[in-house]
Amino acid sequence: MRIIYILLLFLCIHSNAQQKLLGFTDAGSEKQKGLEKQFDAQMNAGNLDTWMKFLSSHPHHVGSAKGRANAEYMADLFRQWGYQTEINTYYVLFPTPKTRLLELLGSKPYKAKLEEPSLSEDKTSGQKSEQLPSYNAYSADGDVTSELVFVNRGVPADYEELERMGIDVKGKIVIAKYGGSWRGIKPKVAAEHGAIGCIIYSDPADDGYVQGDTYPVGPFRRADAVQRGSVMDMPVYPGDPLTPGVGATKNAKRLDIKDVKTIMKIPVLPISYEDALPLLQSLGGPVAPAAWRGGLPITYHIGPGKDKVHLKLAFNWDQKPVHDVIAKMVGTDFPDQWIIRGNHHDAWVNGAADPLSGMVAELEEARALGELAKNGSKPRRTVVYCAWDGEEPALLGSTEWAEDHEKELKEKVVAYINSDGNGRGFIGASGSHTLEPFFNQVIEDVKDPQTGVSVKERRYAKQLVDADKASRAKLLGNKYMKLGALGAGSDYSPFIQHMGIASMDLGYGGEDPGGEYHSIFDSYDLYTRFKDPGFQYGVTLAKTAGRITMRLSNADALPFDFNAFYKTLNDYATEVKAMMDNQRVETETQNKMIEENLFAVGKDPKKTYASPEVKQAVPFLNFSELDNSLAQLKTSAEEFQKMYANATTLPVEKLNQLNLLLYKAERSLIDTDGLPRRPWYKHQVYAPGFYTGYGVKTLPGIREAIEQRNWKEAQDNIGIVSKVIEAYNAQVQQAAKVFSKPTF
Amino acid sequence: MRIIYILLLFLCIHSNAQQKLLGFTDAGSEKQKGLEKQFDAQMNAGNLDTWMKFLSSHPHHVGSAKGRANAEYMADLFRQWGYQTEINTYYVLFPTPKTRLLELLGSKPYKAKLEEPSLSEDKTSGQKSEQLPSYNAYSADGDVTSELVFVNRGVPADYEELERMGIDVKGKIVIAKYGGSWRGIKPKVAAEHGAIGCIIYSDPADDGYVQGDTYPVGPFRRADAVQRGSVMDMPVYPGDPLTPGVGATKNAKRLDIKDVKTIMKIPVLPISYEDALPLLQSLGGPVAPAAWRGGLPITYHIGPGKDKVHLKLAFNWDQKPVHDVIAKMVGTDFPDQWIIRGNHHDAWVNGAADPLSGMVAELEEARALGELAKNGSKPRRTVVYCAWDGEEPALLGSTEWAEDHEKELKEKVVAYINSDGNGRGFIGASGSHTLEPFFNQVIEDVKDPQTGVSVKERRYAKQLVDADKASRAKLLGNKYMKLGALGAGSDYSPFIQHMGIASMDLGYGGEDPGGEYHSIFDSYDLYTRFKDPGFQYGVTLAKTAGRITMRLSNADALPFDFNAFYKTLNDYATEVKAMMDNQRVETETQNKMIEENLFAVGKDPKKTYASPEVKQAVPFLNFSELDNSLAQLKTSAEEFQKMYANATTLPVEKLNQLNLLLYKAERSLIDTDGLPRRPWYKHQVYAPGFYTGYGVKTLPGIREAIEQRNWKEAQDNIGIVSKVIEAYNAQVQQAAKVFSKPTF
Repeated sequence: MRIIYILLLFLCIHSNAQQKLLGFTDAGSEKQKGLEKQFDAQMNAGNLDTWMKFLSSHPHHVGSAKGRANAEYMADLFRQWGYQTEINTYYVLFPTPKTRLLELLGSKPYKAKLEEPSLSEDKTSGQKSEQLPSYNAYSADGDVTSELVFVNRGVPADYEELERMGIDVKGKIVIAKYGGSWRGIKPKVAAEHGAIGCIIYSDPADDGYVQGDTYPVGPFRRADAVQRGSVMDMPVYPGDPLTPGVGATKNAKRLDIKDVKTIMKIPVLPISYEDALPLLQSLGGPVAPAAWRGGLPITYHIGPGKDKVHLKLAFNWDQKPVHDVIAKMVGTDFPDQWIIRGNHHDAWVNGAADPLSGMVAELEEARALGELAKNGSKPRRTVVYCAWDGEEPALLGSTEWAEDHEKELKEKVVAYINSDGNGRGFIGASGSHTLEPFFNQVIEDVKDPQTGVSVKERRYAKQLVDADKASRAKLLGNKYMKLGALGAGSDYSPFIQHMGIASMDLGYGGEDPGGEYHSIFDSYDLYTRFKDPGFQYGVTLAKTAGRITMRLSNADALPFDFNAFYKTLNDYATEVKAMMDNQRVETETQNKMIEENLFAVGKDPKKTYASPEVKQAVPFLNFSELDNSLAQLKTSAEEFQKMYANATTLPVEKLNQLNLLLYKAERSLIDTDGLPRRPWYKHQVYAPGFYTGYGVKTLPGIREAIEQRNWKEAQDNIGIVSKVIEAYNAQVQQAAKVFSKPTF
Repeated sequence: MRIIYILLLFLCIHSNAQQKLLGFTDAGSEKQKGLEKQFDAQMNAGNLDTWMKFLSSHPHHVGSAKGRANAEYMADLFRQWGYQTEINTYYVLFPTPKTRLLELLGSKPYKAKLEEPSLSEDKTSGQKSEQLPSYNAYSADGDVTSELVFVNRGVPADYEELERMGIDVKGKIVIAKYGGSWRGIKPKVAAEHGAIGCIIYSDPADDGYVQGDTYPVGPFRRADAVQRGSVMDMPVYPGDPLTPGVGATKNAKRLDIKDVKTIMKIPVLPISYEDALPLLQSLGGPVAPAAWRGGLPITYHIGPGKDKVHLKLAFNWDQKPVHDVIAKMVGTDFPDQWIIRGNHHDAWVNGAADPLSGMVAELEEARALGELAKNGSKPRRTVVYCAWDGEEPALLGSTEWAEDHEKELKEKVVAYINSDGNGRGFIGASGSHTLEPFFNQVIEDVKDPQTGVSVKERRYAKQLVDADKASRAKLLGNKYMKLGALGAGSDYSPFIQHMGIASMDLGYGGEDPGGEYHSIFDSYDLYTRFKDPGFQYGVTLAKTAGRITMRLSNADALPFDFNAFYKTLNDYATEVKAMMDNQRVETETQNKMIEENLFAVGKDPKKTYASPEVKQAVPFLNFSELDNSLAQLKTSAEEFQKMYANATTLPVEKLNQLNLLLYKAERSLIDTDGLPRRPWYKHQVYAPGFYTGYGVKTLPGIREAIEQRNWKEAQDNIGIVSKVIEAYNAQVQQAAKVFSKPTF
């Protein structure tokens, strides 16, 4: 007995002897840890289950009765938990389908079903009258008949390949596989190449039977399930198409719909692989390159075929309300410093995984925080819990709210913490790299529910196990988790990319694969069987995001880290320069190959495969301004971080001064003119790719100009980025000065 | 008119101004080039067409009437062309099926069809009474019923994966995909793991509809087409199972069949993917890892399933004759120095591509050489054209003939040049690296029929075009063609691996993909539509192999190159050492991961996935003996090659002395005891892998011991290989001494 007791005591001491929390005094750190223990004790997985069951019980897309009811239900909850809660409503353009027709003409005619079935194993799948039919929001109206061409993922590289094969999509309808880019890129690039219609289908190789058993046996996509989704040109700007840059309030000035740049130019329709099969089977022309082939039991041809395809789409172009739930717990010490925590609540249909699995974790987090507050531990800074509406069509709710409150938010927001769905598995996170060391400390303190080790340790183990044997030695011992860079795809966009607010996006997953995404089968029944049975990881997300929120709201000195940011930024710069060097060698080599006729000699003369065109040699750009700004930042960041170690000993006044400088530093990464051809995106380090969509482009102004071989623009953007880094550096230096003793 | 004339004249001069042929005097080189021009002028694609049509008109497997008729037909041709021709017959064990039954039992029973259909588009496909049914030769007889397990390719790594997934094949029947190893490895490894039966099927991802349109629309494997083939354990020894090491003459001493090591221990049956589909669909258990999945429209599970499989096989274990056609043109100057050129003539069914496409090229080559001889240009060395029987079951004809004439061949053979099928596309070649520079000169002088550049240039272009953009710069300008190393899979094995005769294997391909391999659809109809229409590449193979044969037979100083061999050998040694270093790091890392419990923490707790076992640390072996022998060889080889540049100026007697040393050098790479556990394989540099089959293992004694973690054996083999290199080096030094002036 005694030995065990000592051992337990030792373990307790050992776990208490962890490092001090970043930004807290010793005492503050201990107090905060105690608070987190109380917070964890509040967690009740049953709540997540109850809420998900209620919120997903009917389709709750933008403009639906259930969407509104859900917003009100959550607002009531927040109020019960002690939050000052309001529903902010905006009025946005949200098209819904009036006509959907897709048919293969000719000798073997086929009319696409465009219909997902009711399943007895899935209780909500039969709510036909309430479901949005399968469609791509912000597709153009259209009635087109033409030959069909298979364009793989439909990204620019695929069209280069088509060109070499002598296949032109001008005047044709294209069919593209989902995946490989954000879906809106596919019709955009198709239209740029002259296509008059676009079909997007889910190939079974991506999330169907190739990956695992299909629903309801397993969670993967059935032959008849369709991925809905927006195709608005969000890499130009997200939010209501009619009110770029301003909140879509009732009386906001609106663009005429014909002047809107973000609505797709051609009709686009998503279909199932059951509907895609006859279309793909009808194609003639060359066999698709190996990398283009999917999992259907056919030889994939590129087309066109003998038979034409008829696509007819018409939409109701209605204005719909979006209801954002905004719940505030005003901070005791710094009411004007806000930590915002958000997840969206709207779905394409019932949306159990996307977005409710993240939403219910946020609710439980807010409830627990409310309980602590009721027990006397209110947050020192203001915490704002948001439940966004209209994320699915175009980040509508978050963008309009952010634009509507831009001035206040830029002034007050310390950080924005996002989630958007969650499942069983491993921590995944992207965000501002100033938050990286802080985040690493948080994930050391959250236990993985399946193994009992920290979620940081578990992710590290997974990474090593998954790595090929040859790469493991390099990874062994390196437990530090690099944050990904934020691209697009959820509600952090307006915060980080439009306003320069340090942001994070996080969630668990990797042991929750499935093919329910944006179909009627993203249901409570599927989620609780396959994605996170028992909501263990929902609770873990609440513990993780809750710690981030609470530590940011209670810290004495905000735990931002300029060193971590500098290192990442420097890596991006190195990457961009290396990319250009590679481009130079590749261009030289390819031009020599063309000169030596090697493309003509190496190809199969029975196939059309044109040599690429000779390209202009890649020049050397002047990177010195960027290098100098980075060198200065390195020095100041290192100097600052040395001082920051003692930040909590600063007098309160200086500490307040420091905190303002710390959280506003990210603001200086904004250039008011924004990125080339898309001024809404102002952050100079992180942006969604113009031709990748979700895919982030870091140092986007420089990187995309190089990719597009626009050397002048690349050089100009080196200047812009360097200026921004200099401004950032000035902020860091000012922060360092806070530490200097007053001179008499 | 005049300008064109001058231009033509210039081009002629330019092409005549090429480098001197290796091993010839200036005058000899010019004469040889003239001869090759005459040789080329003889080429007639129509002959290849006629012969292939005749030879493939009926099934001609071992023991068939048509096989014998084909041998006699070719013998007649050789005689007409002036060759001393005989048919050498050996008597070999060749099993054919008596009973073939495969059925899925249980609730959804299925009886495999095991039948390929007649097609109106393919004239020979209906010759049912003459066709060998689909089977694996040298399978065991057996009648087994058990659960089924899918084992991917059925190689040792797949069983490691199965073990980690907690799946045991003991007492079960396994189903494996073709590919990833020689087929005989699959039942061998299955039996080693306790399986009682093995089914091998052709997955559509490998050569069926995933790759292209199926026959008769395109050349790829139909759902009902089956790959026949041998599963004899040829990595132990090829040839007649009953007469290892000696010719299977009528009265040769034979083993009792029960004592034979190379006959498979369990019943094995190849099936189509149509027959495989219900079996695979019946499987339960875990979803197969991504890399294991094929192209069927199902979720691939590993099994077992609820329902058992019944496999019943019985064979006629008969002795059959194999008829080798041996056609000699005795050399004018060196009748006892032989160049052997061979291709097999037997097929599994009609065998148009495999082997006749290579056989008819050899025939045209022999015919043209015969015409030159009739016109007074007989070869200086003896040329022997061989048409082997029984290659498909076990290299029967070539092995028995080689074993029967071992002493003479070891004494006389300069080199063995093999082909085995041919098609449209690019030169491919493997062989003894002493022949590499010589071969590079040959392929500079053969024009590609589709583009008019040399086949060397075309291959170079293809390699560059196929390389990813990042790798191209490294390849640009490097036109030298590295020879592959000879593993197994055709008739060169007894020559190089058993007797140490420098060998080559070559053919064209890459623009002739298809799925006809070893099915009834490897027919004249398919070949002439898809593989090499017009036999342009058949003619090109005749020109290439013809040049090799003629130059070797006419050269003054045989064009062997010790430098090229040294460099390759040194690369292999470096590779083996690096492999061991990597193995050391990987073992260390994996052991640490096990110690830190990372496999347990990183895995999905809902799935069975055992941590690997802690492995013994990889020691450091003593490579000094190998390093020393290589260093010595480097010096002598360099010294020799400097002298060789003037070899043709040597007095005739010395030249003769030199030539003997040159072509016998490869003999010293033989160790009479052979490789561990397979003494028939005596070459210490090249061997087929014991667990890969076709896949070559260079420095096999060392490499395979390291792979098997048998450190003692690896160290012993470092010694054996070093001794062999020292013996080789002595040969090189003796060759160098030929150049030294006599001392008085």
